[in-house]
Amino acid sequence: MKKVNNTDYNIRNLGECKIRTPVVVNYYTSDSKRLLLQNYLDDRTPQKMKTVKGAGDISSSVEVAGPRENLFFDPSKTKAAIVTCGGLCPGINDVIRAIVMEFYHRYGVRNIIGIKYGFQGLIPSFGHEIVELTPELVENIHREGGSILSSSRGQQNIGEMVDALVRMNVSILFCIGGDGTMRAAERITEEITRRQLSISVIGIPKTIDNDLNFVQKTFGFDTAIAESVKAIACAHIEARGAPMGIGLVKIMGRLSGQIAVGAALAQNDVNFVLVPEVPFRLDGDHGLLKALEARLKERKHCVILVAEGAGQELMRNEKTTLETDASGNIRLLDIGYFLKVRIDEHFRKTGVEINLKYIDPSYMIRSVPASASDCIYCSALGQYAVHAGMAGKTGMLVALMKDEYVHLPIRIVTSGKKIDPEGNLWMRVLESTGQPPTLID
Amino acid sequence: MKKVNNTDYNIRNLGECKIRTPVVVNYYTSDSKRLLLQNYLDDRTPQKMKTVKGAGDISSSVEVAGPRENLFFDPSKTKAAIVTCGGLCPGINDVIRAIVMEFYHRYGVRNIIGIKYGFQGLIPSFGHEIVELTPELVENIHREGGSILSSSRGQQNIGEMVDALVRMNVSILFCIGGDGTMRAAERITEEITRRQLSISVIGIPKTIDNDLNFVQKTFGFDTAIAESVKAIACAHIEARGAPMGIGLVKIMGRLSGQIAVGAALAQNDVNFVLVPEVPFRLDGDHGLLKALEARLKERKHCVILVAEGAGQELMRNEKTTLETDASGNIRLLDIGYFLKVRIDEHFRKTGVEINLKYIDPSYMIRSVPASASDCIYCSALGQYAVHAGMAGKTGMLVALMKDEYVHLPIRIVTSGKKIDPEGNLWMRVLESTGQPPTLID
Amino acid sequence: MKKVNNTDYNIRNLGECKIRTPVVVNYYTSDSKRLLLQNYLDDRTPQKMKTVKGAGDISSSVEVAGPRENLFFDPSKTKAAIVTCGGLCPGINDVIRAIVMEFYHRYGVRNIIGIKYGFQGLIPSFGHEIVELTPELVENIHREGGSILSSSRGQQNIGEMVDALVRMNVSILFCIGGDGTMRAAERITEEITRRQLSISVIGIPKTIDNDLNFVQKTFGFDTAIAESVKAIACAHIEARGAPMGIGLVKIMGRLSGQIAVGAALAQNDVNFVLVPEVPFRLDGDHGLLKALEARLKERKHCVILVAEGAGQELMRNEKTTLETDASGNIRLLDIGYFLKVRIDEHFRKTGVEINLKYIDPSYMIRSVPASASDCIYCSALGQYAVHAGMAGKTGMLVALMKDEYVHLPIRIVTSGKKIDPEGNLWMRVLESTGQPPTLID
Amino acid sequence: MKKVNNTDYNIRNLGECKIRTPVVVNYYTSDSKRLLLQNYLDDRTPQKMKTVKGAGDISSSVEVAGPRENLFFDPSKTKAAIVTCGGLCPGINDVIRAIVMEFYHRYGVRNIIGIKYGFQGLIPSFGHEIVELTPELVENIHREGGSILSSSRGQQNIGEMVDALVRMNVSILFCIGGDGTMRAAERITEEITRRQLSISVIGIPKTIDNDLNFVQKTFGFDTAIAESVKAIACAHIEARGAPMGIGLVKIMGRLSGQIAVGAALAQNDVNFVLVPEVPFRLDGDHGLLKALEARLKERKHCVILVAEGAGQELMRNEKTTLETDASGNIRLLDIGYFLKVRIDEHFRKTGVEINLKYIDPSYMIRSVPASASDCIYCSALGQYAVHAGMAGKTGMLVALMKDEYVHLPIRIVTSGKKIDPEGNLWMRVLESTGQPPTLID
Repeated sequence: MKKVNNTDYNIRNLGECKIRTPVVVNYYTSDSKRLLLQNYLDDRTPQKMKTVKGAGDISSSVEVAGPRENLFFDPSKTKAAIVTCGGLCPGINDVIRAIVMEFYHRYGVRNIIGIKYGFQGLIPSFGHEIVELTPELVENIHREGGSILSSSRGQQNIGEMVDALVRMNVSILFCIGGDGTMRAAERITEEITRRQLSISVIGIPKTIDNDLNFVQKTFGFDTAIAESVKAIACAHIEARGAPMGIGLVKIMGRLSGQIAVGAALAQNDVNFVLVPEVPFRLDGDHGLLKALEARLKERKHCVILVAEGAGQELMRNEKTTLETDASGNIRLLDIGYFLKVRIDEHFRKTGVEINLKYIDPSYMIRSVPASASDCIYCSALGQYAVHAGMAGKTGMLVALMKDEYVHLPIRIVTSGKKIDPEGNLWMRVLESTGQPPTLID
Repeated sequence: MKKVNNTDYNIRNLGECKIRTPVVVNYYTSDSKRLLLQNYLDDRTPQKMKTVKGAGDISSSVEVAGPRENLFFDPSKTKAAIVTCGGLCPGINDVIRAIVMEFYHRYGVRNIIGIKYGFQGLIPSFGHEIVELTPELVENIHREGGSILSSSRGQQNIGEMVDALVRMNVSILFCIGGDGTMRAAERITEEITRRQLSISVIGIPKTIDNDLNFVQKTFGFDTAIAESVKAIACAHIEARGAPMGIGLVKIMGRLSGQIAVGAALAQNDVNFVLVPEVPFRLDGDHGLLKALEARLKERKHCVILVAEGAGQELMRNEKTTLETDASGNIRLLDIGYFLKVRIDEHFRKTGVEINLKYIDPSYMIRSVPASASDCIYCSALGQYAVHAGMAGKTGMLVALMKDEYVHLPIRIVTSGKKIDPEGNLWMRVLESTGQPPTLID
Repeated sequence: MKKVNNTDYNIRNLGECKIRTPVVVNYYTSDSKRLLLQNYLDDRTPQKMKTVKGAGDISSSVEVAGPRENLFFDPSKTKAAIVTCGGLCPGINDVIRAIVMEFYHRYGVRNIIGIKYGFQGLIPSFGHEIVELTPELVENIHREGGSILSSSRGQQNIGEMVDALVRMNVSILFCIGGDGTMRAAERITEEITRRQLSISVIGIPKTIDNDLNFVQKTFGFDTAIAESVKAIACAHIEARGAPMGIGLVKIMGRLSGQIAVGAALAQNDVNFVLVPEVPFRLDGDHGLLKALEARLKERKHCVILVAEGAGQELMRNEKTTLETDASGNIRLLDIGYFLKVRIDEHFRKTGVEINLKYIDPSYMIRSVPASASDCIYCSALGQYAVHAGMAGKTGMLVALMKDEYVHLPIRIVTSGKKIDPEGNLWMRVLESTGQPPTLID
Repeated sequence: MKKVNNTDYNIRNLGECKIRTPVVVNYYTSDSKRLLLQNYLDDRTPQKMKTVKGAGDISSSVEVAGPRENLFFDPSKTKAAIVTCGGLCPGINDVIRAIVMEFYHRYGVRNIIGIKYGFQGLIPSFGHEIVELTPELVENIHREGGSILSSSRGQQNIGEMVDALVRMNVSILFCIGGDGTMRAAERITEEITRRQLSISVIGIPKTIDNDLNFVQKTFGFDTAIAESVKAIACAHIEARGAPMGIGLVKIMGRLSGQIAVGAALAQNDVNFVLVPEVPFRLDGDHGLLKALEARLKERKHCVILVAEGAGQELMRNEKTTLETDASGNIRLLDIGYFLKVRIDEHFRKTGVEINLKYIDPSYMIRSVPASASDCIYCSALGQYAVHAGMAGKTGMLVALMKDEYVHLPIRIVTSGKKIDPEGNLWMRVLESTGQPPTLID
């Protein structure tokens, strides 16, 4: 990947791009249109980006996404492949659909394949079939949740995967997935560069947790909030339906409590929100159990919303080795079940008869079809990804930043966005729930 | 309760009913209108009813519900009380609302109270407040799930409860609840009769399981199916979303698999339905595990729907004493979790990597607001219950039979309706799912 | 159609039925199982049926639906055709799906075709394609509203249609449609009988209006109510959102106000329900306009729900010739728009500034997918229709009566079920809405 | 309104703000934190703002919203009033709720009143009641659409309204409404300044059309799209349900087709989108009618989505005087009905029998409760509005810009945001729908 002038992520020197975009409509975004990253007067927040080696100077601005006037790939000879990895998330099918439709209807590319079961589908020994993706096939897939290509976790051999791309004559590979997928996509890009192949690798970051650095909002997040709200409403009804009723809801959020916070702000029945960013204790005068006791005494019912990644340190004492799943994510200890047991125990000791109902709606949240706003978002991501691919961009991903679609180097976008426990968002949660500012002595 | 002529369940001799219904509209159902119970030519199924002592001859017909021309209670002096017991079920608030509205708008009764937290609310030592139920208060409660009166399980002292009714000067008590509640309602009626009090006790049977003898359909059942369908759709998406994906859904149904069967017929993604009425084995050549293996081999994904009361005998070996909850229901062993563990174990042994997603949506099903058809049904049940109470009926409940609202003696309506494993309904399930006719060697 | 013994609607003498049902499951309903029609003690309501000539003695009982032990058609040689006619209604696709699935999975019949655009599809000159219906094609069609076969209105030549059936070698024709469709189906049956052909004609009655005689409930009705409720909720919000707000909703119901009544009972925000069965006046001291004035004065907002067939006589004065549409239905004058104009006019005259919002949600009601309860119902109707067809029944339709699936002669089931303005259902509406018992002087 | 240093919109010199925010949580946004407006490298788009007189230098940055350390109003003596004007929009109740909750739970302000029926409620002669807004009252109002305060259109006397504020001792007035409301709010601010009163006026801009300059997205827009999508799905089903079926949907969008464009991108069944920004003709070789003919010939069905403000010029010939409604908006001629008539006419002439179904879902879109994402947005707007009010800001409104909440001068935010017919958004619509780039010769 050689950098030319002011332009990032191109497979080669743009001088080679002699092919003109087929004139459907006459609108193009120039490579030199760049979104400024400075947000505030006298402030230079996005410093971290500066350090990204090989990604050009992205300390102050980033490339804006959009159709380019010159193409790197010849539409009549382009073959694209799509792979979906990691856990399900609302909107994956919308992205697949948008990619296929954009290739067909704007660029006239007719050769698009779907890789089944994530990166497994690129490894011959698994024997997974290849799916030909046509407008007819994808026409209605956005009405269903999940991924029509299915997914899988786990790393596969980079060389074998590049071999498969070469063998199938793939020009552009779209990787829809999370952190692990993006790391793999980057290594695939490196291997492609090493072999001097003209294969473009474009990422569309997916995480229902909405915790990606530099990304305004990940797709599926709005839908996840909307579904979470339904589960919380049920927990609230259950809590009020029995003497000393407690509704306990565990929700996605491994490293950040974005969904929990969003759901709590959208659905005002939550009394305690527990997130990874804000440590809490169970015992002690300011611990959760005492606060819960006080709440029950006063109001006779309570709703607790806990992100799956919250309070891990409370459980670690008893279990020291950290396991990881096939994607390399640390296998979380079940904070929901842990809380259920500890709360039951506590009130049995104090002689108060409670009625705790534990709800774990995760699979019912992540597998629904995308909401209308996510539909629009996913279709934009898919379209911009195709524009980038056709223009010969590689090693990059498409993202929304400050309400503008941009290109970002694949390596800098990782999970890491946190809720600031001193910031306005968490303050709003405290005000909405009425929970104490701290649950630690 | 003295029987007079052809009329059932009256508090006393109907000759005392001198009060005329306030003329809102001029429509009445006569006590002598009776629904015939014989269904088929040359067939006399409902024999069981004949044996009910004191309930009159109900072997061949039952009293039709509706407003009566003569009232037992003087509207201006009537005080009614409503109590809701047992687990939540969609539609409870609709019934409460309908009772209050009917009293106000048809009979001009303005004195209606709500007993909080089930029968606990009639026992002074619990210290629960009494709620005055007015049209303003109940106007919109049907838009929310649960019960605005809350609920509880567990028996209370019958004498103390009748004392409370006397002390509060209650004329009519409406009991919304399941088997246990109806048994208590009957004992309350007996105590009232023994004390020669003029208090009417009317039951509105509630069980989301839809397993009541003689009752066409219990309220909340349609809503429960609709919600179950959503959970199954998610399980299906999850199952297809990963290699060898299994979606396992546990659903309500202690003694009968009505919800499971209804949901399987409404949502055609289920491959195995496991219900209490149809025993199955895990092991053996025709056991579930082998059938599951075959299905996965052929289709690569599978959805299993299990009613909570299914397969209890499989788990009993290890645990012999049967516990009961506060309502006297046998505490079920968790068949969902049991299946999850056993299926995981089986495939680990056979070396097939599966992806099992276990979904337990019960609390998210039973706590939603009633669907439109349940709204209509609940409002009818509430209205007919008020007609019965004002006419001085007691020890009875309101039910739908052969698409007609009728009065039935409280004692005969108990859980017991079963799915016939040889009947048409189960046959339709086998055809819809494609599951083998038997999962037993 | 020759009648033998106790059995109705058979193509020929049952003695010819030598073929046994392929043993999937061993459950059959005998032709001699008959549902008793007498409902009440000392009452013989269904007299009207007695007069149906050629339909056997159905004055006291009707044939129960279900799989028969002997088949008339040899599954390996059977070809079935499905046609959908008239307006859209939720659940049509569910019925189509159930027919196809039942043929494949129970009977092994693999030759099923779909006729496009109603009876037009049987007339070659229209040039509509024929659709092969397979399990793969129909698998998910119940998730969409409408009919995958499309529909049309209007009569076609009976002889030509029978010619087409013969030419295509169709054994069983399933007609899904309303009154007009059933009249055509009967004439097709007569022509088939006249020609001594072995073609079975089975009707599945469809009318969103739920106004069929003898039929407990038509499919799609529950869904229609649920959707209507949403429109009414919006009308209510609009009415309350502006000074002197009036929400006026027009809803389906040509000859009977069943949907309006159901929606009013399910959604308690309606203040006036206007149905074809209950005449009303606009003017005069007890007319709608005065009642509306009173309501607005007292509560400042009002919701009016009008069935499309209501108040036709009010508009007839100005327009005397009654037009009919292609199905032969009388073209209704638009009572919704008429009311809007007359109400606006009235209050302009009286100097009261009102804010009337007129909502006509009909197309948004009838085109949605079926609700879960309608899914189950439609799938049963489809399955029972197939059983009837394979057993060689003809000139009949499948219906639910007293909560049992039965066979009824096609000719007796016509629109005509009315709401009794003196009956319990209408009384419940008056109580729920608080509207005056009469809107006529 | 005297400007001090770098700070906009303050009632008076900030030096007077001696009161400290009650310490709930210790988080504040400084008045000097300013969002940079420059978006792109070498680009200075928001020039227009520079010209706003009295609003300080907002050419390059704007004040960031958030809680301030110093308050202008003493919480114990503050009285707030809320007024909602113009048409309904999802989320109004959420904003009201958030304002009340923030006042109570963060600032301890307990004196909040609701003005009924828009600005009418400030004019004594209308006789509308004043509503006391408490947490109990507003707790669940976000579950309902509309405005609990109701709304109205039309201008009222500015002096009389300020008199009312003085008489009621109001410190902060929150105006939720559209262009007309904001113009009135500004004139109220001017009158307050002229009288040297210490009353703060804060706007929360509301327009379902999402066409405000400088505002990223207006509240209710996401919900409106989601509801529009449902209507379009129905139109699509209807279009496919009959021979030559046309589904025609009219949707909100007076000056801009934002909702139409969003809905078309979210729901991919639309074939023609007609918006105010892109003129079209009916007749001529490239007119809509010819394009429609071609589409019907090829695909046999078609869905047309038209924004209410589209094609106004086509209808103007026949009607020259432009009427306005009470809010001063030009009364639009009904493009939906106009298209229906003209399309019917055209195909009648050409002898093609079409089936056009016209759906106008506007009232069913704008009156629903807010979606989860709108809930969160509205609650943020309400909270930031309260922070601004308590800090003594006035003549400003709260808005989202580049994903950050900011303060903007009330006068600059007016309807005017347009879809660029040469821009990326419209290009995406053309690609999604497949409609010709131009419908003009």
